[in-house]
Amino acid sequence: MLKAEIKQENLQQIIDSLFLVDEVMINISEDGFTTRAIDEAAVAKVELTVNSSAFEKYEATSRTLGVSLESLQKVVNKSEKGDMIHLKLVEEEKTLKVRISEHEYYLTLIDPRTMEQPGSLPDLEGSLQVSLAADNFQKGVRAAKTFSDKMTFRTNSENKLILESSGDDNKTRTTFSEEHFIESNLGTADSAFGLGYLDGIQQALNDTSSIRLAMGVDRPAHMEFDIAGGAGRVQYFIAPRVRNN
Amino acid sequence: MLKAEIKQENLQQIIDSLFLVDEVMINISEDGFTTRAIDEAAVAKVELTVNSSAFEKYEATSRTLGVSLESLQKVVNKSEKGDMIHLKLVEEEKTLKVRISEHEYYLTLIDPRTMEQPGSLPDLEGSLQVSLAADNFQKGVRAAKTFSDKMTFRTNSENKLILESSGDDNKTRTTFSEEHFIESNLGTADSAFGLGYLDGIQQALNDTSSIRLAMGVDRPAHMEFDIAGGAGRVQYFIAPRVRNN
Amino acid sequence: MLKAEIKQENLQQIIDSLFLVDEVMINISEDGFTTRAIDEAAVAKVELTVNSSAFEKYEATSRTLGVSLESLQKVVNKSEKGDMIHLKLVEEEKTLKVRISEHEYYLTLIDPRTMEQPGSLPDLEGSLQVSLAADNFQKGVRAAKTFSDKMTFRTNSENKLILESSGDDNKTRTTFSEEHFIESNLGTADSAFGLGYLDGIQQALNDTSSIRLAMGVDRPAHMEFDIAGGAGRVQYFIAPRVRNN
Repeated sequence: MLKAEIKQENLQQIIDSLFLVDEVMINISEDGFTTRAIDEAAVAKVELTVNSSAFEKYEATSRTLGVSLESLQKVVNKSEKGDMIHLKLVEEEKTLKVRISEHEYYLTLIDPRTMEQPGSLPDLEGSLQVSLAADNFQKGVRAAKTFSDKMTFRTNSENKLILESSGDDNKTRTTFSEEHFIESNLGTADSAFGLGYLDGIQQALNDTSSIRLAMGVDRPAHMEFDIAGGAGRVQYFIAPRVRNN
Repeated sequence: MLKAEIKQENLQQIIDSLFLVDEVMINISEDGFTTRAIDEAAVAKVELTVNSSAFEKYEATSRTLGVSLESLQKVVNKSEKGDMIHLKLVEEEKTLKVRISEHEYYLTLIDPRTMEQPGSLPDLEGSLQVSLAADNFQKGVRAAKTFSDKMTFRTNSENKLILESSGDDNKTRTTFSEEHFIESNLGTADSAFGLGYLDGIQQALNDTSSIRLAMGVDRPAHMEFDIAGGAGRVQYFIAPRVRNN
Repeated sequence: MLKAEIKQENLQQIIDSLFLVDEVMINISEDGFTTRAIDEAAVAKVELTVNSSAFEKYEATSRTLGVSLESLQKVVNKSEKGDMIHLKLVEEEKTLKVRISEHEYYLTLIDPRTMEQPGSLPDLEGSLQVSLAADNFQKGVRAAKTFSDKMTFRTNSENKLILESSGDDNKTRTTFSEEHFIESNLGTADSAFGLGYLDGIQQALNDTSSIRLAMGVDRPAHMEFDIAGGAGRVQYFIAPRVRNN
């Protein structure tokens, strides 16, 4: 059983945070839900935990649902920020009814037995650990997109964190100093990642205030932030790009 | 002879209401004009009557003009809401001169002898007859577009009017009760229509306050509303989609 | 050496005025810079002179740079009106560093020895010489685009300047009388030009107040206006289209 109400902006951020995949297997409990997913190229993983406090109303018993994020996004596209979105399982729990004022949408659920759920994310680790204002992270990624599809995070000897990208002839660089870090443990980092992943993350940040990063040298990165006003938390684990040095 | 001035928003709504076709044959008289058209698939007909009061100035003698709505729309695209659009027949009445401030556009008219004009629309009939606020009709059609290209209007035993659509896996439903009807004669209805037609109608509604519907069970629908601030009236007649029940 | 700061809107207008080409060879001196370019079809030439007063700060020694306008536009797209854009030659002057707040972009310069620079523009001449408000020129060109890719400038016996274009079936006309001319020497003109060129010019006009035109009968046109608030001047020389009369 599931009967819940959620503000449009919270549901939108939940969908945005799962940008790696088109379908997810959601584990619902009395206290909220969790989901884990891995992208098709098996380069990035996401783990999302949302507390029932992200909802205006929430009543559920434990079950697993297969949801098409694509169909759910089409419905959310018909709503506006501030709208209340009502969710309810119907038809022997094979259908998710989504109601927005007098409009009802019936989404056929996917049989979770046909879906794979990846294992949990490895522990966050990395010689570099910093928190950046979401705004700074977003601007750095957007600048890096100008000429390239790959971005490097690296530290230098002056304790600065540098976001760099290189295109055919051109390159971009954004430099963050200690005054940009909310909290930090500034070890050495030097790893490159696909900008498609970083761009999905900066879009999902939306109104979130900060993002925590943990990285090393040519190692996977952890990125983590709160969503739905602190009622949920999303973590990403992204494999680095191989470089020709 | 034709010499007229019309506000941009009125001319735009006239063009919008004729969305079924690219060219129309317009019957001009001293009192205004009428036109009838049928779409290429012969599924829907439109009949438009516009009184001279829709114009700021209007002077005409009886004649029939063939007009390319596509070319006329390109000219109207160069204007803004509130602009005055001047229309005049020139060059032995083979050309429509459209003037918007100091810019003149000369549209070559189509010989009406090469065009076909459909017969007049059958009388409005249907066991269900309701008027809906234009806003409600628009929202119902927009919701139905989410997953499908077909929409059903049906009544149920509780005197409600239900707008439904079904996609491959998903469906949508908008329910209107008696408090939504401006005037009504609530017989039984259950007919499906192509959403392309309904979408064109909801767009043409624009600032119109209400739309009158007449329907039955697997029968054609009549839809009718005022345009140009009440100075014109447009009626549609749409064949139902065949259903596999 | 080059070290300069320029407001985003001035740099944008400089780029816009060079719409004929993707790459330019820029001649920098202590006092500003000049550039000349010719489009691939060899139909139009542009000559741009920008005084150092177009910059907020400007320090340079004479040199010639090959710049990709396409790459530079991508960087300017990351900025907004009012932003300050910092330019500096780095890496043995083979790279242009563009800084916008904490973001740095490194554009690889093109070796100017691989580029051709066209000769200077012929003197402005033409029996018709008028200045038009930029706004009027822009509206005339936009109206002409409605149905055609070619536009004629011609004078008539009433000392009017007429901008005309013809499509397959339709034509447009904008008429300017003496009250539209800021200064004029109204000889005869009758020449047609590609609208692609005129459209690029009307876009580059932006906030410029007026444009000077010099034309004749089936002769090239000169068009000229100030940019960067009067600190620069751009001139175009456009060959006429051949007509079948």
